[in-house]
Amino acid sequence: MSSNLPVSGARLWDSLMEMAKIDATAKGGNNRQTLTDGDARARGLLRSWGEALGCTVSVDRVGNMVLRREGRDPSRAPVAMGSHLDTQPTGGRFDGVLGVLAGLEVLRALHESGTETEAPVVLVNWTNEEGARFSPPMMGSGAAMGIFTEEEVLAKQDPEGLTFGDELRRIGWRGEADPAELRKLAAYFELHIEQGPILEKEGLPIGIVDRGLAQFWLEVTVAGEEAHGGSAMGPRRDAMMAATYLVQEVETAALAAGEGRGTVGRLTVQPDSRNVVPSRIWFSVDFRHGDPEALDGMVKRVKDRAKEIEAERGVSIDVKDFWYSPLTPFSEDLVAALKRAAEGRNLPYKIMPTGIGHDAVYVAREVPTAMIFCPCEGGISHNEAESITPEWAEAGLVVLADAVLATAGRAVPA
Amino acid sequence: MSSNLPVSGARLWDSLMEMAKIDATAKGGNNRQTLTDGDARARGLLRSWGEALGCTVSVDRVGNMVLRREGRDPSRAPVAMGSHLDTQPTGGRFDGVLGVLAGLEVLRALHESGTETEAPVVLVNWTNEEGARFSPPMMGSGAAMGIFTEEEVLAKQDPEGLTFGDELRRIGWRGEADPAELRKLAAYFELHIEQGPILEKEGLPIGIVDRGLAQFWLEVTVAGEEAHGGSAMGPRRDAMMAATYLVQEVETAALAAGEGRGTVGRLTVQPDSRNVVPSRIWFSVDFRHGDPEALDGMVKRVKDRAKEIEAERGVSIDVKDFWYSPLTPFSEDLVAALKRAAEGRNLPYKIMPTGIGHDAVYVAREVPTAMIFCPCEGGISHNEAESITPEWAEAGLVVLADAVLATAGRAVPA
Repeated sequence: MSSNLPVSGARLWDSLMEMAKIDATAKGGNNRQTLTDGDARARGLLRSWGEALGCTVSVDRVGNMVLRREGRDPSRAPVAMGSHLDTQPTGGRFDGVLGVLAGLEVLRALHESGTETEAPVVLVNWTNEEGARFSPPMMGSGAAMGIFTEEEVLAKQDPEGLTFGDELRRIGWRGEADPAELRKLAAYFELHIEQGPILEKEGLPIGIVDRGLAQFWLEVTVAGEEAHGGSAMGPRRDAMMAATYLVQEVETAALAAGEGRGTVGRLTVQPDSRNVVPSRIWFSVDFRHGDPEALDGMVKRVKDRAKEIEAERGVSIDVKDFWYSPLTPFSEDLVAALKRAAEGRNLPYKIMPTGIGHDAVYVAREVPTAMIFCPCEGGISHNEAESITPEWAEAGLVVLADAVLATAGRAVPA
Repeated sequence: MSSNLPVSGARLWDSLMEMAKIDATAKGGNNRQTLTDGDARARGLLRSWGEALGCTVSVDRVGNMVLRREGRDPSRAPVAMGSHLDTQPTGGRFDGVLGVLAGLEVLRALHESGTETEAPVVLVNWTNEEGARFSPPMMGSGAAMGIFTEEEVLAKQDPEGLTFGDELRRIGWRGEADPAELRKLAAYFELHIEQGPILEKEGLPIGIVDRGLAQFWLEVTVAGEEAHGGSAMGPRRDAMMAATYLVQEVETAALAAGEGRGTVGRLTVQPDSRNVVPSRIWFSVDFRHGDPEALDGMVKRVKDRAKEIEAERGVSIDVKDFWYSPLTPFSEDLVAALKRAAEGRNLPYKIMPTGIGHDAVYVAREVPTAMIFCPCEGGISHNEAESITPEWAEAGLVVLADAVLATAGRAVPA
């Protein structure tokens, strides 16, 4: 193979464990939320590691940090790697961090081996991927790609009323660069834990992610009639009972659609009293699918079932389209580069979509993008128990390294 | 028949409409919550009507008012009628008021016809039946029957922090009588709207209520595993989906048990986010049945189904016994008296339980008790649209009058 950069899985693991000391929790995870003192320390550690390799470090106006290793041709658009160092309040040691520190390990290997690339190679640490402190998530990549304006991002408040902009300045990571510069990348690769159990179950070390699923969110209101809990069953128009059948249809429709996902994550009851038959149930539906037509079919199925339930139970049901996010196809060229890298290392892989939002899903709107998934134990993430093996981390690392070098191009010695 | 007191359905209706003027709402109902100025005006109107008949009016320390028409033998325990004049915030004109003013009409007919009864006949207006302003409901009858202490009742606060005791004094209806005196009644009859649609549907003008249903309340917690809304369906342990099947079993068990009632009136979701598969669902179950064994069967059915769902869906389900209220049998003698009264008037009737709490259900613990139900349109109550016909009101009135006179005994002229 063309690559065989001397990347070190052991050094990557050591760096992961070193980073995990910052804002470690008693249960073995991390609480290193965005724009906290811990985030600043994590950023500082990454900067020092990057500067030790001779990388330049720049920061943009929403705090995205970029480590740049110059290419033979500085005018070429950079090939990028990246992810995020911020965590959930009870987060794990690998979600986001793996992608950043695997990128760092690629830079280290390039540096140590004296390998020159044609294009510059950069590593991006995106601000506030998690969205736990400042909502919504993926704010740094969203601002860079023009999905959010800088102004709205800087004005966001945390639950204590502190603004993103003030906190960014307070921790010393408000930079001068224009976030929109990051739209000019030649390629973006992100290694991330799967946050699901498929790879582990199928015994595969690598997932190559070729698209972000399309999403269709609904809001459903079931209106029945309030009645006393002592009233006879026959005449009831119980909104709760009617709603349960439609909630079940969300699951049924997702299962019937193959790789669909269906979630009812919120549900409220009126009037919310133990001995009163509910008059009104409201619930949310989050539908996802890799095929927009199949997604529409799931939505239609719920709307049709709602009509049946209305007729069966004398309730009225309103199914409202709430939000739609189109399918995000990743770059065919970069997916092909990842396949070649995995095959070159004899690592079995699976082509799969991501149903979960990642910085890569936003970046893909402006930049050729692909992702690598690494298995995680039990599919658990956003949890202090989140865990991967050093072998899995190393497999993801070598595929990333080979694909980046192939894409950036090894400069031929003069 | 022995009775044929000259009760007047028209006069009852006029009184109902007169009372409905106090705190009338724009939509044709009433907002006359307990211990408000409107409640004081309603009490004053009832007192003036009672005093015009020569009744004595006494008030006890929790505000229960008693109009007493003396019997030939003042030492005999009184035969009582009663209900309540307070309403829900968006209440109707008949819930409670019908029972009080039908009792008043019986007193009027006794007075006008110069009929003497062996036992005294009394009419009770219980304080705070509705429980909307001061919770729980049925506080006046509960205090009288020793279910609540006077102290706890007087200390209850409304949502603005005003206490029951202060408000009772403020409106001028704190009396001197001992509420426990009301345990010494010989009999208690309560006419009330059904608050359900059965009588109207079956075309019956009279329901004779022979018992209050036993109640068994449960609290159910379904624990699954939190997962991202984008994660694959296969490995999910979705607490929401699992819970829907158990919620449905509440309805199924109630229907299978004949006259059972099953209600899930509250349900909460954790973590309550649109794109997160719920890890925990909590819900309440209100089960009622006229047969305690059948009630136990309903509970067992839900507990058995919970075990099945645990096995099917990899969740864990905790079903906790929360509250039990035994069957409240009403007096066989008074039920028989009501049957004779209805038959004497050629009014078809149905023997039925009440699944809903009434003052009568508390009174029945200490005093021989029975109830009469009057149909109400569409089964609607606790609503400004609550409605009955003058014919229904009159049918209830004559059955009440005949049963009261038969129970109190018409004094034989000397």
